[in-house]
Amino acid sequence: MSANFSASRRRFAGSFLDSFLLIDMNTNGASENLPGGKASGAATPVSGTVADVRARIGTLRRRQHGARVSLVPTMGFFHEGHLNLMRAARNESDFVVVSIFVNPIQFAPTEDLAAYPRDLGRDLAMGSAVGVNLFFVPPDEEIYPQGFDTKIEVGRVAEGLCAETRPGHFQGVATVVAKLFNIVRPDKAYFGQKDAQQAAVIKQMTEDLNFGIEIRVCPTVREADGLAMSSRNTYLNSEERSQAGVLYQSLSEARTAVAAGETSASRLRRMIKKAIAANYMVDLEYVRIVDPGTMEPVAAVDRPALAAVAAKVGRARLIDNEMLIPPGGTDAQDRS
Amino acid sequence: MSANFSASRRRFAGSFLDSFLLIDMNTNGASENLPGGKASGAATPVSGTVADVRARIGTLRRRQHGARVSLVPTMGFFHEGHLNLMRAARNESDFVVVSIFVNPIQFAPTEDLAAYPRDLGRDLAMGSAVGVNLFFVPPDEEIYPQGFDTKIEVGRVAEGLCAETRPGHFQGVATVVAKLFNIVRPDKAYFGQKDAQQAAVIKQMTEDLNFGIEIRVCPTVREADGLAMSSRNTYLNSEERSQAGVLYQSLSEARTAVAAGETSASRLRRMIKKAIAANYMVDLEYVRIVDPGTMEPVAAVDRPALAAVAAKVGRARLIDNEMLIPPGGTDAQDRS
Repeated sequence: MSANFSASRRRFAGSFLDSFLLIDMNTNGASENLPGGKASGAATPVSGTVADVRARIGTLRRRQHGARVSLVPTMGFFHEGHLNLMRAARNESDFVVVSIFVNPIQFAPTEDLAAYPRDLGRDLAMGSAVGVNLFFVPPDEEIYPQGFDTKIEVGRVAEGLCAETRPGHFQGVATVVAKLFNIVRPDKAYFGQKDAQQAAVIKQMTEDLNFGIEIRVCPTVREADGLAMSSRNTYLNSEERSQAGVLYQSLSEARTAVAAGETSASRLRRMIKKAIAANYMVDLEYVRIVDPGTMEPVAAVDRPALAAVAAKVGRARLIDNEMLIPPGGTDAQDRS
Repeated sequence: MSANFSASRRRFAGSFLDSFLLIDMNTNGASENLPGGKASGAATPVSGTVADVRARIGTLRRRQHGARVSLVPTMGFFHEGHLNLMRAARNESDFVVVSIFVNPIQFAPTEDLAAYPRDLGRDLAMGSAVGVNLFFVPPDEEIYPQGFDTKIEVGRVAEGLCAETRPGHFQGVATVVAKLFNIVRPDKAYFGQKDAQQAAVIKQMTEDLNFGIEIRVCPTVREADGLAMSSRNTYLNSEERSQAGVLYQSLSEARTAVAAGETSASRLRRMIKKAIAANYMVDLEYVRIVDPGTMEPVAAVDRPALAAVAAKVGRARLIDNEMLIPPGGTDAQDRS
């Protein structure tokens, strides 16, 4: 992973520098006048360094004691799912920090780090428009300086599902999120339900390491045909895009079946597999029916369970999930 | 490690409960009237829960904005080395928190967790007398509740030396210290130079995970014959105690040799080994000459290096280290 990471660092020096002028690299510099994409008024400041983020949040907390700070960690290339997290953060806090960082250590060497879509100017404009107070857009070297050598491993909840084909992925996620938590020290942090296992990993880490941060998980935002919004949807050509809708449709069928009394996890998995198999461009990686807290497989859906799928569609690896609620059940406690 | 941990948790429920009455287990309860060992006046409060520590430090920070908080993490059974850390913290901050927690996950199943010396009443009295503001004395379940499943691994600096015979030890140390850092959120944290590799691991983790905490490493405090103070010295009978002094004496010989121009790490190691071998009760585990920052072996002492030893003496595993400074050199930058 280390070698891959160094390679990726070099690979992206250029693309990062393309947007360098937008970013304040000075510890204490004010970047209020940077373009943030708003039609008028002061633009949202953009920090490129840990020290600058800390200085700004320190100033905020001195000026406004008890200010509630929220963090929305992202890899950029915003869609409605991201904006929804930012709006929730906006509604529930005084100061919203959005980090934009394509975290190299959560990508395996075979994965799409190089291709991951980026458009910083568009992201800053979209985030500013929903009321973000500070963007943190660090270069790779700011997060992983020479000599960086620590990793956080979350146990069982980080096994199975996506971990089976993405070894080291959740370790990379947990490590970067711990860093962002320590840099921003938010009161709340926002994640999307689409990445259900990621959210479970973050919750486990946050509790185990006593971060004292409230983890908010917001509902998946979907396209008209139900496809979960994802920055990776941009990889899809029109035929792939059309077939990708089956992921959510198959989960919806399972949800309907459970609401009608089906409890067998194996029958539900077969149902989902069959629906997906009818779409030849959708190459299923897994279908699992799991406990939404522990991510461990369940045999019977006699209480709320999570149906989770992953598939390759063209170049894109897509994931989705949906709560399965038995008749009379509720998933309220699992979606907060 | 998990099974061992559960066993140790059960094993210590009793001994912890013996001192339970001293400890405030209520989230918001005031424990100002608990005995803290002072001859007069209000005793130092003792918290047994994360929530109580947070509430107290939150109150402090609200009342005294900009208050500088220090943390001294310990496993208790205080000696002058611990008190020295507390005095340094006292001199450099407004509020000194001392944690007393014999961390089960840093002990291997074969090690001395069960035997580790404890005397909470004495510790509270000694700490109070040097001006500690808050003791954090959690039961095992408060730090490792049911379902705990996260670990922090620091890389190369946590390899070699003590890691060779204590697999998982530094992972356990890093994990508990990260938790204490998040619970207390100190500005500075204090560690002893005797545990040089531990201090290097904590520094690496603190930097890598952006804790924003200053790590202070204080000089080793020694007995009259040079033996480094350690809670484990209590395991020694009088003959073992007498022979244990050779650890420091051998390091001093090496230091003198380096000051006189010796640069060969292999000759220095042989010199230390020979001195120790003359004491039949001292069973040497390792002698290493290492870079004091990375803990990696050096071949030549042409700049300041650390000579580190570990040995079994009777039931006790003892460690010690000493900076080797070539003529004209300085170790100032390595001892801060």
